Formats: sequence, structure tokens, C-alpha cells
Amino acid sequence: MKVYGVVMAGGSGTRFWPLSRQQRPKQFLNLTGGDAMINEAVARLRPVAKDGIFIVSSKSQREGLFQVLDKSIPKDHILLEPAARNTAACIGYAAIEIVRRYGDGVLVVIPSDSYIKNAEAFTEALSLAVERAAEQDAIVTIGIKPTFPATGYGYIRYEDVPSPVKPVKQFVEKPDRARAEEYIASGEFVWNSGMFIWKASLILQKIEKYLPELYKELLCIGDSVGTEREESVIDSVYPEMPSVSVDYGVLEKTDGIFVVPADLGWSDVGSLDMLEAVRPSDGDGNVTVGEAYPLETHHTIIYTGGKPVCTVGVDDLIIVDMPDVLLVCSKERAQDVKKIVEELRAKGKEELL
Amino acid sequence: MKVYGVVMAGGSGTRFWPLSRQQRPKQFLNLTGGDAMINEAVARLRPVAKDGIFIVSSKSQREGLFQVLDKSIPKDHILLEPAARNTAACIGYAAIEIVRRYGDGVLVVIPSDSYIKNAEAFTEALSLAVERAAEQDAIVTIGIKPTFPATGYGYIRYEDVPSPVKPVKQFVEKPDRARAEEYIASGEFVWNSGMFIWKASLILQKIEKYLPELYKELLCIGDSVGTEREESVIDSVYPEMPSVSVDYGVLEKTDGIFVVPADLGWSDVGSLDMLEAVRPSDGDGNVTVGEAYPLETHHTIIYTGGKPVCTVGVDDLIIVDMPDVLLVCSKERAQDVKKIVEELRAKGKEELL
Repeated sequence: MKVYGVVMAGGSGTRFWPLSRQQRPKQFLNLTGGDAMINEAVARLRPVAKDGIFIVSSKSQREGLFQVLDKSIPKDHILLEPAARNTAACIGYAAIEIVRRYGDGVLVVIPSDSYIKNAEAFTEALSLAVERAAEQDAIVTIGIKPTFPATGYGYIRYEDVPSPVKPVKQFVEKPDRARAEEYIASGEFVWNSGMFIWKASLILQKIEKYLPELYKELLCIGDSVGTEREESVIDSVYPEMPSVSVDYGVLEKTDGIFVVPADLGWSDVGSLDMLEAVRPSDGDGNVTVGEAYPLETHHTIIYTGGKPVCTVGVDDLIIVDMPDVLLVCSKERAQDVKKIVEELRAKGKEELL
Repeated sequence: MKVYGVVMAGGSGTRFWPLSRQQRPKQFLNLTGGDAMINEAVARLRPVAKDGIFIVSSKSQREGLFQVLDKSIPKDHILLEPAARNTAACIGYAAIEIVRRYGDGVLVVIPSDSYIKNAEAFTEALSLAVERAAEQDAIVTIGIKPTFPATGYGYIRYEDVPSPVKPVKQFVEKPDRARAEEYIASGEFVWNSGMFIWKASLILQKIEKYLPELYKELLCIGDSVGTEREESVIDSVYPEMPSVSVDYGVLEKTDGIFVVPADLGWSDVGSLDMLEAVRPSDGDGNVTVGEAYPLETHHTIIYTGGKPVCTVGVDDLIIVDMPDVLLVCSKERAQDVKKIVEELRAKGKEELL
């Protein structure tokens, strides 16, 4: 059976501001010093998704996408959503396109904005997942072996059978600290990475069952695939779709899901402090990108988009100097960068967003 | 007797970097939101120094000076030092020029980089000082009534006679904290403001007595005043002058000095944190110059030379965003900004200095 990659790349990422912008979401950024996140995701999928890689992104970000995206991705593999409708719609859209174009195939669906250090382990986990999805017509997810009691991720509980592919017992929402510690101690939980492997036909079957309204809209799109009216149908149908995550809308409701626990050196690049996970630090724990002179400075992230940045006697800051705006943020408040974005929006400073 | 103002404006001020630069020392900056410090000093002198105001600055800063300086100052009142040789040389130079041009006059000598809030009290103190200097051919200084046990200023001890003009008992160097507290408690001390009022002829007489080498060089300059060779004489003589402060070289050695204690709302603008003294703050104690969005930010100084600056969850910082360089400094480390300047110089980044 054919194997297709689907990179979900529609996010906006205000917690990454001012590195990310409305027209330049974080998946278009080169955070690691290698390539843009979206291209690193594509490169990571290639060894497994041998029959083609699809990108689902936002129509409003099309210009930035075309500037950044690996030129080897064919134009007709770029699916543009006219409105953001969460992951069930996004995955359904990719599935219906693939079913109508090629009949069927295993889809390897991954987010565009995760960081993965161990490429080989990633390929290995995906290969196992693809094999299981193809052979047993199953839904398979990749679970990240937890390294600390994170409260910012969802968890997956599995049955520890003697196989690298484990039956899923339960999907659980982001826990509080105490519960996260229990999960870790039990050894039965992995983090939900947001990566799913399943046949396009199975996805549509599950959506038909659990999200019939969405299914109806997807059929409309399906009927237009390859016709002149495809774009106009998508433009009119998409905004009507229910906005629901595939986790909540499908996975939590169905049985027979598997997970491949893996040690990927994975980070969900959720806010600016994650630069520490993807960049080397100096002897004082500072991570600097661009020309920086940190004097008696510790555990500080400095990103400069042009000019030199000097610091004296500061600790635990995030400094992002862009040509049009400067952010200085306490590292422990990295999540609150979105509040500044809200304030700037309220003050009509759209040009900075 | 005629009264002339002399504004000493040759300093470099690396502790004010990156607002100040080699070619744009702090006295050329508009820190208060009113005018450049040097022009505020000139304006402050006008009510007293009725017969003209002289500027002594550095030849290397001439371009910046001419851009900034109040156009009403005649060109021949601008004295440019080819080398920095401390205050005794600076004041001696102004004195010999005035003696040779006008015979004599009372000189009101003030630094260009102090901040004075109470203009009326200043005029009043200077008028008293000028009167005493003219009548008794005395050296008179202005003393600042101390508001806290500062360790960064020199002190003047005086005899508390029933006159606003008090005899000086002693000049003392910057004290340690315990001693500063004693000084304050005694009620007999004021801060040394670096402002002196005396006749030009008396200055030269004192320099002849205590700094004879300097006097000889000043005579060479004096002989050239008004001739074609004046500039070349100054260029060759000045670098040979001893570099000594007027406090150490003259005042600490001589008797019969008076001080006028005054309550001027005075600040010696020594480092960036002084912006707090000269600018209004918001309800969270932040002082911002330019477009700033301080979110959950306290007691922070933000100066932006152009683009918006956003902060989240930070306290007690100094942020100076210039078009070519950014500084982020802990407020309590404001004095150490000069270390960054040294580091940049060592790394050959002259263009930033």
C-alpha cells in the first residue's frame, strides 16, 4: 500500500511572537539553525512517506509558505485551508483528497512545529506504525517517552504488551502536576505527540461515524476534486465545518488504537523558551542567535534579527530583537507573550503582529 | 565686574552608553525631554552669566557639538581642547582666554552634565556666589544639600555661620557608607557639585602658585590669544599639560573658600539609571522614552531610539534600544555598562562606541 505524509502547518503561534507573525508563523521559522521547521518536518518524513508528502496550511499564509517551502513539494500537494478548523477538518481534507486521487493509502500525519532530535528513532517508530496501520487497518499514534512530569501535554496510557506497538487504553487531557507525577511513576504513559498513522479510508470512515456533519462537508469537497470548481467549493464549505480536534472528535471515542512509544528527543515548540531545547548554550547557560555580548549574564536567550545585543548582569530573560520591534520577557513568563500580542492588537498595532 | 559663564563639556561618559557615544557624549543628549543637557546648562546660566557664556569642549567632538549647541553661542566662545586634561587645565584655559580678551571677570564654572530641577534656587545660589566672589575676591562653590548618604560624590564640610555663604572647612573624597551616614547626621556637609565661582585673575593666580607647570603652558596660550597661531599653539601645548582636577590641584590646597549650600533638585547624571531622576514614571515605577509596552513590568527604564519595545514580567531593568545596538542591563549594574564598552573596544567593535 502507498504511504503519504501529511504535514499540518496551519498554526499561527502567537506565543512565539515577535519571531513569528501572522504572515510568518513559527513553522516557517528556522529555529534550529538548520532549515525552516516545516522543511525539517518534510525531510524527516521522506524515508517513510515514499509516495508523496502533502502540506495542509492556511490560505492566508500562502505567500510566506511559498517563499519558505522546499521546492520539491509539487504545487498540487499543497492544500490551503480558507479558514482554520482544527485537526479533524485538516486531516479529513487531506484524506478525502488522497482517496479521490489515488483510491487509498496510509497517511502519516505530523505537526509541522515539533522538534525531533533523534531522526533514526523517528523513522523506526513511523515504519512500525505504518506497517501496523496497513496490515491491521488500525489507527496508530506515536507516543513520546516522558522525561519529566509535564503539565502542558496530553498523555496516552497503554497496555505494556511484548511488542513495540502497544494497544492504547486511554487518551488523557493535560494533567495537573501531581497527576503527571503519578503517570510518570506508573511507567504506563507516554506524551501525545499529535502524530497519527492510519489509512485515508479509515479516517473517513471514523469521521463519518463520529463527526457526520464534517463528513458531509468533506464529501462536497471530494466531489469537486480535480474539477474547476474545487477551490470555490472549498472556500464555501470549509468555513462551515465544525472546529474540533481529531483527538477529541475521533480518537477518544474509538477503540483499537495503538501507540508506538519512542525516545525521539522531542519538543513541542510551544513558546520562545524552547529555543533552549534546540540550540546549544554557552558556559553560563545562555543561548544566543546572532551577534550577542552577554556580560555576567546567565540562562538567557538572546535572538537578534540584525544588530548586536549587549547584556549586563541579567538572568533568565528572553530577548528577541527584530528590526521592527523588541521583546524583553522573563523566561518563566514565556507563555504570556500572547498577552502582549493581544495588547498590541487592542491598540491597533496590526503591523507588528 | 563682568560675569561670564563657563560650561565644561568635554566628558565622554561611557557609563551612558549606548545612548552616549564617542562622538555623542551624554552632554549632547536630550535626557529630560526638554533640550540637550549642554543647552539646558547654558539656559540655566543665562540669568547670572550676563556678559557671555563660554563652552569648553573636546576638539574630537566638535562636529556633534556644532550640531547640538544653542546657535546663540558665538563661535569664538567655543573653546576646543585638543586633548582631555581634566578640570584644572579646562578652567585655566577659559580663564586665560577671558583675561586676555576682557581683562578680568567673575567666572561661573559649571559641568554640562548635571541635572538641576529647581532653576530658581540655582539662580539664587549663583547670584550669592557671584556677589561674594566679586566683592571679596574669593573662591566660592555651590554645595548640594544631601538627600541620602551617597558614596559616589565628594563632600564639602563647612562652618555654619549665620549667612547663606559659608566658609569651607574641608573638601573630602567619596566616603564609604558609614562615613557618609556620619556626614549626613552631622549636618555640616554638602555634596561637591563641581560648580565654582571666582575671578579669572584669581584662578590664574592659584594655578601659578599650586600648578606652576600648567601655568607656564597657559601663558603660552595667553600670548597667542587673538593671533593667527592661536590654534596651533593650543594644539602643541595642550597635550603637554598636567592632567589634574581643580579640586585636587587647587581647592584642597588653598584657604578662604566659601560654599553656598543649596537645595537644587540636583543629580549628577552618572549612569543610565539616572533617567529615573529626570523623567516621570508610570504607576508601576517604569520610566519610558519612546514607544513602549511594559506588561506586568516594574521599576524598569525603557529608552527606544525608534521601534516599539515590549516587555513581559520583568523588573528593575534598563533597556536602551538604539538603531545599531541594544543594551539590556540590570538596574543595579548600571555602573558596569562601561565594562561592555571595554569589551566591545577589545573586540574591535569601534563603530559601536
